[in-house]
Amino acid sequence: MSSLESNPCAECLSLEQFQEILGIRAKLTEAYLDQYPAMLAAQGREIPQSLRQAILYSLKAGGKRLRPALCLASAALCGLESEKALPFASAIEMIHSYSLIHDDLPAMDDDDLRRGKPSNHKVFGEATAILAGDGVLTDAFALACESPVPPKPLLESIQELALAAGSGGMVGGQELDMLYTRKPGIGLDELAQMQAMKTGALIRASCVCGARLAGVTEAVRKDLSDYGRALGAAYQIADDILDQIADSATLGKPAGSDLAAGKTTYAALLGIEASRELALAEVARAKSALAGFVGQEAAFLRSMADYVLKRAF
Amino acid sequence: MSSLESNPCAECLSLEQFQEILGIRAKLTEAYLDQYPAMLAAQGREIPQSLRQAILYSLKAGGKRLRPALCLASAALCGLESEKALPFASAIEMIHSYSLIHDDLPAMDDDDLRRGKPSNHKVFGEATAILAGDGVLTDAFALACESPVPPKPLLESIQELALAAGSGGMVGGQELDMLYTRKPGIGLDELAQMQAMKTGALIRASCVCGARLAGVTEAVRKDLSDYGRALGAAYQIADDILDQIADSATLGKPAGSDLAAGKTTYAALLGIEASRELALAEVARAKSALAGFVGQEAAFLRSMADYVLKRAF
Repeated sequence: MSSLESNPCAECLSLEQFQEILGIRAKLTEAYLDQYPAMLAAQGREIPQSLRQAILYSLKAGGKRLRPALCLASAALCGLESEKALPFASAIEMIHSYSLIHDDLPAMDDDDLRRGKPSNHKVFGEATAILAGDGVLTDAFALACESPVPPKPLLESIQELALAAGSGGMVGGQELDMLYTRKPGIGLDELAQMQAMKTGALIRASCVCGARLAGVTEAVRKDLSDYGRALGAAYQIADDILDQIADSATLGKPAGSDLAAGKTTYAALLGIEASRELALAEVARAKSALAGFVGQEAAFLRSMADYVLKRAF
Repeated sequence: MSSLESNPCAECLSLEQFQEILGIRAKLTEAYLDQYPAMLAAQGREIPQSLRQAILYSLKAGGKRLRPALCLASAALCGLESEKALPFASAIEMIHSYSLIHDDLPAMDDDDLRRGKPSNHKVFGEATAILAGDGVLTDAFALACESPVPPKPLLESIQELALAAGSGGMVGGQELDMLYTRKPGIGLDELAQMQAMKTGALIRASCVCGARLAGVTEAVRKDLSDYGRALGAAYQIADDILDQIADSATLGKPAGSDLAAGKTTYAALLGIEASRELALAEVARAKSALAGFVGQEAAFLRSMADYVLKRAF
């Protein structure tokens, strides 16, 4: 606990302030997502009932809605009102939701539970779960097109998002993760590259797209890209540590046991303490990318970096 | 055979002319698709090798490339040079390719063969096949954004495509198809609605997007939408008839046997002759939607309507 508490972030929000804004943004996103089947219906596109149920089951299953909050905050930091970025931010959450549905499938990670509830295919069957993922992914692009910003930056944002989510990004990272699970001798560089694609790309795109929607300069976009890259890395390392702590607590597994089971993680490769150091370094990098920014949105983004790390300490 | 041969289309191309142009458009599309992983790489997005192989296996497996040809022809009819519509037309083919990969999965139609070759999951495994579909679908939107047309009509085209392919379109149609396979008493209206989503929506969108990319008026877009709707219906009825003929020839199954096996098709509901009449009526509707157009591209589109029906006679 000490590293974070002894180094309070001078230009951050208090944890309470941060969580309040995060909660408001989650509610905004959820209210928008509630309307999405009705928005398709208004365009003459009715989602069949069973498919709609399956999509909404996962889309409304909670979560902190970190990615849309990042998109909204980046947009606001760059001068775009949050509500103008909301359709796009919600589309990012839809893509995140699809990725969880497909990752849980029996042919993939074969997870029966997601956020304490039965995973999508456990409730609706494999065929509908595959289609729910396909549908909500595709619908995300239709929704993103609704964003009330000029067409050129919107197109650039859509391409950024598609590249980050596609086979050279998130999908490619999941493919590498499946390969690496069965392959011995994965090193830190391969692990970092895989995670940068699987988890990092969408987190980074959430930040960059917020900036792009606002139509900022290349230099500002680069700052938010650097911030998003480091934040994504910190997030994943924290996740690995958290898994390791949870496993050790419930199953008495020693550090390194993930490695023995064929699953390479930061905690398994480096141990928990060195992983925490690595994550702290990424948080510092994320904050230094924002060195040129002042005000509440910059403070929110800095606090986000502390926040994603907090659970691993 | 007689209905078509005794009613030659006065404003159509000869079959040879039509097939020559169709072949040229297929080659253009395939050459563009060959470049797609390199185009992602140029944007800093490398597709992992195993995933790239799986995607290209399906993307290069042949087929007539009818959907990109429709998009290119509609664009050209509306005054846009074909090469400007090529990225978008190729993106449509990528979405078609993903839908075939996912439809063949064990949890879906469980097909071991596709176009005479082992289906994607039979070669690469289920996990990689799911990811190949997810990846090529998402990448399609990244590629569509490359189209060298003004951003506003491009955005409208992307939204049109996403709506047609998503859960209120193609994906929703596949969900209904899965439901109907197990449900007795499906009538003609439900069958037509399901097929209009599952097969029709992407065919129709191929035509409408070609027109949208060219920036035409609402009235012209409506003509191409009507054409595409009728063409899609004719295509699916012909497909049903073809399946029925093939089944009867190889297995000695009588007409109506699909219905007995729980699969509702036009041929099963109406018999082959009445299905042919229905398909001919849709072809006539498709051609009449083009009544206001002259020249080679209109002739190509009219010939396309005859062509999709030809195999069912």
